[in-house]
Parts: sequence; C-alpha cells; structure tokens
Amino acid sequence: MSLIVTIGREFGSGGRELGRRLSEELGIAYYDQEILKEIAEKTSLSENYVREIIEKRPFASYPIHIGRTMHPMGNPIMDQTALIYQQQSETITELAEKSDCVIVGRCADYILREKNPLRIFVYADMEYKIKRCKDRAQEGEQLTDKELEKMIKTVDKNRARYYDFYTGNDWGDRRNYDICINTTNISIKDCAHALAQLIKTFA
Amino acid sequence: MSLIVTIGREFGSGGRELGRRLSEELGIAYYDQEILKEIAEKTSLSENYVREIIEKRPFASYPIHIGRTMHPMGNPIMDQTALIYQQQSETITELAEKSDCVIVGRCADYILREKNPLRIFVYADMEYKIKRCKDRAQEGEQLTDKELEKMIKTVDKNRARYYDFYTGNDWGDRRNYDICINTTNISIKDCAHALAQLIKTFA
Repeated sequence: MSLIVTIGREFGSGGRELGRRLSEELGIAYYDQEILKEIAEKTSLSENYVREIIEKRPFASYPIHIGRTMHPMGNPIMDQTALIYQQQSETITELAEKSDCVIVGRCADYILREKNPLRIFVYADMEYKIKRCKDRAQEGEQLTDKELEKMIKTVDKNRARYYDFYTGNDWGDRRNYDICINTTNISIKDCAHALAQLIKTFA
Repeated sequence: MSLIVTIGREFGSGGRELGRRLSEELGIAYYDQEILKEIAEKTSLSENYVREIIEKRPFASYPIHIGRTMHPMGNPIMDQTALIYQQQSETITELAEKSDCVIVGRCADYILREKNPLRIFVYADMEYKIKRCKDRAQEGEQLTDKELEKMIKTVDKNRARYYDFYTGNDWGDRRNYDICINTTNISIKDCAHALAQLIKTFA
C-alpha cells in the first residue's frame, strides 16, 4: 500500500521543516514549492501569481455571487482561481500516483482523500511562531512582534478560507486529521524520527 | 524534570487503553479509576456517586443561577459538585507530585498546567467508536448502533461540559493539547511504543 503523508500547518509552526524531515526519515519524496512550479507551467501563469491566488486571495464573494453574477461572461479572476485549483488537484494526484510522498499544504489531504493519506496538522503557540519567524527573517526584513502576529494571523486566515472553501471542512479541526502536533515544546529535528515511526504504525 | 502525561479522550476511542500502554512503555505510574476511589474516601461519598458527578452531571444552571439562587442556604448538590472538583484537584496534584505518571481524564491537563504536562487528546471516527464499544460489550449489554451512537454523544457532551466549565477552555480543541491522535486507523497496541518515543522528545 502506498504511503502518502499530507501536512497542514499554521504559519510559523515549522510544519514545512517537519514535512521535509519526515520525508527524509521515511525515505520518500517531498513536494511543496514544486507544486506551484508545476501549476505555473501548466496554466502559463507566473509562479508568483499562482502563489498569490493559492495563499493570499480572498474567496468570500465567489460562492454567493455565482449564478447571479454581474459579469455575464464570467469573472476572469475567479475563472483563473478555479483553473488553478483544478490544476492543483491534477498535479497533486499525479505526484501521489508516482510514488510515496509527503505533500505540504494545498488541500492535499482533501484532494487525495480516496487514497487514504496520513493527514498531519502542525501548529504552535503564537509566541513560538513569532520567535520562529524572527529567527528566520532575512536582514532588513525585521518586523516587530506586533507586525509579525498580525501577519501570521492574516496568512492563517487566508489558508483557512481557501481550505474551507474547497473542502467544505474546517481547516485545523482535529477531526479532519490523523495526528495534530503542537511544535511549541519540541525540537522538530529531534521529533521527526519518532513521528516517522508513529506514522508507520497507521494502517 | 518530571514527566506527566495527561490523556483527554472521546468515549470509545481507546484513550484509556492507550494511556495504560503508554505508562507501560514509559515505565511510569498510571491513574484512572484510582482517582475516583481516592476522592470517594476523602469526601465520604460513594465511588459511584463521585463517578456520576464527574462523568454525568450536567452543570448548565450552576454559573447562571449562583448569586440569585432560590436556595438561600446554597444548593447542596452543587456544593458537593464543587467539593468533588476540589478533592479531584488535590488528589491529582498529590499523585503528580509523587512520581512521573499518566493520568486519564478529569481535567488533569488543566489542574496540572503549572507542571507543564504532556497533554494528549485521543479521538476517532464515530463508526470506529461504535465498533469498539460493541466489541467490548458484556453479554446481555448489547445495544444497537443507533443506541450506541447516542450514548457516545451523550458521554462526550457531558465530558465537554464538565471540562469547559472548570477550565474555561474547549474540550478537544487542539490548541489545548500537545498531541491529538486519531485512533480510527491504528492498532493502539502497535502505536504505543512509537508514541512513547515521540513523547520523550518533548521538552
């Protein structure tokens, strides 16, 4: 049986690092930014634009206005958004069919639900996330704690909105995951081995 | 530093079995029913009555009516409820001070919050919980799936109400825990070793 691990994560929680380390521990492929590149190629949109749509674009008015839109020819930005989600689904499905893998973000847990992925959600206390963002900031990119907190909340709000919109589920609600792990009091490096062993015990 | 593991769990998820197996893997004490016995002794109430209060009694009217109660001498049942919670807190604190341990349920994560316990929440899909309850039912105690589902929901509703009332937090909300684990697709016996290793990596 194939092993597909999906990682949902709060911004600044270290979910991406944990995903990468898990893929190393499990000896399987790791997909994150590669998915954006692939979608950009397939849609002829720029990678930055694809990222913008997936990670930052609000969707609130889409489901309400559809069918009674003021644009009888369709809304071109919303068409692109739907196109990107469709390409994302196809790309993620293709990657998961190619080999065992870890996939970070992008509703992969939902897109691959028929393949029974092992669904992980990574989160942490706000204080920890702020510290982690600060430690990783480039020179000249230093934000205050308050600015970082605002940024973290905005990113996660958009992630939740995107996820909820496409899946109909609640982003970060434990019931949608197999393991939820709080990274506030762990070293991600140290826990990856044990977590990989735990993953192997799932059917 | 001491190792205290607290287990919150949905009824039928196998949280109690997981707690017991974790204590064996970690070589530390395990407390569950012992706490009820201890409280019963200290309060001179029967163990069944203590269990009834902790696991089944609804609390809805307590915080609303207090201060404008129709019982100017106090409400004796509510006094007993508060007494039991106080004894529970004392007992759990004493046990945690005696040695490293796993404690199941009873708001232990909150009561021991200053000792930084490793807080686990165990849950599962309804179908799994029904099956697990059926497999463990005594002869003559067989309920239908529908009856079991109703029973599971009632027990968990009471647990949530009790927890939320005394802690001010949301029972089962991942943010109150370090690890949330869904037992639907695992063998509890097989995962306990890896989970114990994962616990050891927490600070």
